[in-house]
Order: sequence, then structure tokens, then C-alpha cells
Amino acid sequence: LYKQECEEKIILRNNRLQQQIEFIIEIDKLKQVYRQSILMDGTRRENDAEHSWHLALMSILLEEYSQEKIDLLRVVKMVLIHDLVEIDAGDTYCYEGTPYKEKLEREKKAADRLFSILPPDQMEELQALWEEFEKRATPEARFAAALDRLQPLLHNYKTKGESWKKHGVTSDKVIERNKSIIEASKTLWDYAETIIKDSIKKGYLPA
Amino acid sequence: LYKQECEEKIILRNNRLQQQIEFIIEIDKLKQVYRQSILMDGTRRENDAEHSWHLALMSILLEEYSQEKIDLLRVVKMVLIHDLVEIDAGDTYCYEGTPYKEKLEREKKAADRLFSILPPDQMEELQALWEEFEKRATPEARFAAALDRLQPLLHNYKTKGESWKKHGVTSDKVIERNKSIIEASKTLWDYAETIIKDSIKKGYLPA
Repeated sequence: LYKQECEEKIILRNNRLQQQIEFIIEIDKLKQVYRQSILMDGTRRENDAEHSWHLALMSILLEEYSQEKIDLLRVVKMVLIHDLVEIDAGDTYCYEGTPYKEKLEREKKAADRLFSILPPDQMEELQALWEEFEKRATPEARFAAALDRLQPLLHNYKTKGESWKKHGVTSDKVIERNKSIIEASKTLWDYAETIIKDSIKKGYLPA
Repeated sequence: LYKQECEEKIILRNNRLQQQIEFIIEIDKLKQVYRQSILMDGTRRENDAEHSWHLALMSILLEEYSQEKIDLLRVVKMVLIHDLVEIDAGDTYCYEGTPYKEKLEREKKAADRLFSILPPDQMEELQALWEEFEKRATPEARFAAALDRLQPLLHNYKTKGESWKKHGVTSDKVIERNKSIIEASKTLWDYAETIIKDSIKKGYLPA
């Protein structure tokens, strides 16, 4: 495999472009990191690349609901890269008991490896964006995180709670997990709450 | 099915958010529109949502190679939505003989249906962005189109020309199809040419 990879690597005189292309090739792997969310047509699990694309479009369409002024391009960049670390660290189901510290350590290691493929300035930019997202440190990070909560809710709702049922998730857990949406947007949290209540009513989610 | 869809639609007092959420749900279908490109690990075809995510990240990473000054957020928006019309119109393989006019008519109809789900201002914005992309009318559209050429090249290269071979595509066709990259970026076209030449040399692509 290593030999094959070397064979297929065009060695460029432009070392900067070489690093960028290598990263672009490396992140193709995100298309094979599958999440617990089920596509809305119910046919299969969603992967991280699809999820990130969906969040990027949601950022653009729902920007107006952010309570704080946000730089939209920074939000979009953040959601596009927020799950790249899962190429190495894998998807951790949000209702699973994995200790946060353990997950974070795995993901930090992954971020170090992945982003260091890039030229130093871009490595720093993406690393900082990822850390900002993880820490919910800014209005952009809080809005990105809110959408990262809302999107799987929509998927669960449209599939009659398929992944909730599979993992025995109850409504208190769902509320606990998603209530931080309110920090970014009262309007979007109101909507999320409506979905959760209707899911309980319809039997998608045990009360 | 219609009944089910109605059941699962939360009727909101906020009609604007209602339309936006409906659109966000509708575009989930892009994850099931499969292209001729094969994932770089060779396991399966790529879908339009994954492709669009990849292009968005490529825009961010390769912005510096645009010969013309570009508004990066507009490029990112453009690549995120450029294939949405394929939800209705399907993927047209770029080396297929489908008349351009026929393809465009199918896609225009799709754009009308899809974007009209949105509130009027967002419908207009996305419709205009899509048309701009189709016409290669601006620096942003030319750069987006260049990446839309370069990305499948990388996929073909990493899979030893799998989709080229499957469809009997020859190097003159690949050059004809991709040479417009030069309108956006001489550097990226040089790189594309290097890949094409190496693909011929390695037997991925018949001369």
C-alpha cells in the first residue's frame, strides 16, 4: 500500500501545492466515516462528509437566527472541518458513555496528524478553528455547535426516531444533549423543542 | 407517502423558518445522487453531497491560486449548491453525449422547483448563484468550475482511472473537458496536466 501511495503521488516543484493536494486526498476518507444518523429516506447511515455538507448549507440558510453577530465564512469553515478528526478517531455516538477526556485526547492526536499535512499557515488556521469549535469559545462556534445538534434531530424525526430507538435513548437525554442550542438561538431551540415534544407524542422517543 | 410526509411536518407559526426547514429536509436527497467518480479507496461511487463538501474545502484551501480576486464565501456557497438540481435531474456524466440544451432544461426545471421551497429572498440568492455558476459568468464561478473539474481528476488518478476505463474515455476528451481550468488558474491547470500525462504514462488513460 505504501509503495502504491508513493507511486501515485506526483512530486511537484511547488511544495506548498503538494501539501495542499495531499491533504485534499487524505480527507477523502471522511466519506467513509459513518455516523449513527440515518438518512431521511431511511436507507442507510449518514457519513461525516455528507453531514458536514448539510451543516454548511444550514449555516448559510439559518444565519439570521444567531443571537450574536457571526462571521458566516468562519462558521462554514468550522462545520466543514469539525469532524475531520474522526478520520483517525472514529465517530463517537453522542449518547454513548465514552468519557469526554478520552474522546478529546484521541481527537487531538488526530488533529495533530491531519492538519500537519498542510502548509504551516493553513495548519494553524484549521487547528485553531477546530479548537474554537470544540471549546464553543465564540459566537461562531456556538452557532456551528447548535446546528450540529439540530441536524441529527431532524434526521431522527424524519426516520421516526430510528437511531434513538436503536440505542434506547430517552427524551431526557435528548433534551440534556440539545438544550445548548438555546445559547446560539432561542428560535432554533424552540423549534428543536417542538420536534422533541412531537417525537414523544408520536412514540419515536420514550418520554 | 404524502400522508406520512404531512404527518411529519411540524407546522410552525414562523412560516419563514418552516420554508427553510422544508428545504433543509428536501436537500437530504442529494446524499443519494451518485456520480461516476469512485471514492479514492476504490470501494464505491461518490455522491453529490460528498462531492460538494470536498469542493467547499478545496475552495478554502486553494483560494490563493485563483488568478482573479474572488469572494471566497460566494465560491463556497456556489459549490455547496451547484449540484442540488441533480436531485430531480440526476447526474449527467460529463463524457456522455447528452445534448447540453437538454441537460440545461432538465436542470432549470429542477432549480425552479427546489429553490422555490425557500423564502423569496433566499430563493433568489440561490437561483442567481446557480445560474452564475452555470454560465461561468464571474471570477467566483470560473474558480468553482475549475475545482469541479480538478476534483474528479484526482479521483480518477487515485483509482488508476477506474471511471475513465469503465466509460472508454480517452486523453483527448479529458484534456478537452478540463482545459478550462486555465481560465481560473494557470497553476491548477499545470497540476491537472501533470496528472493527465502521468495517467497516460501509467496506463490509466489511453493516449
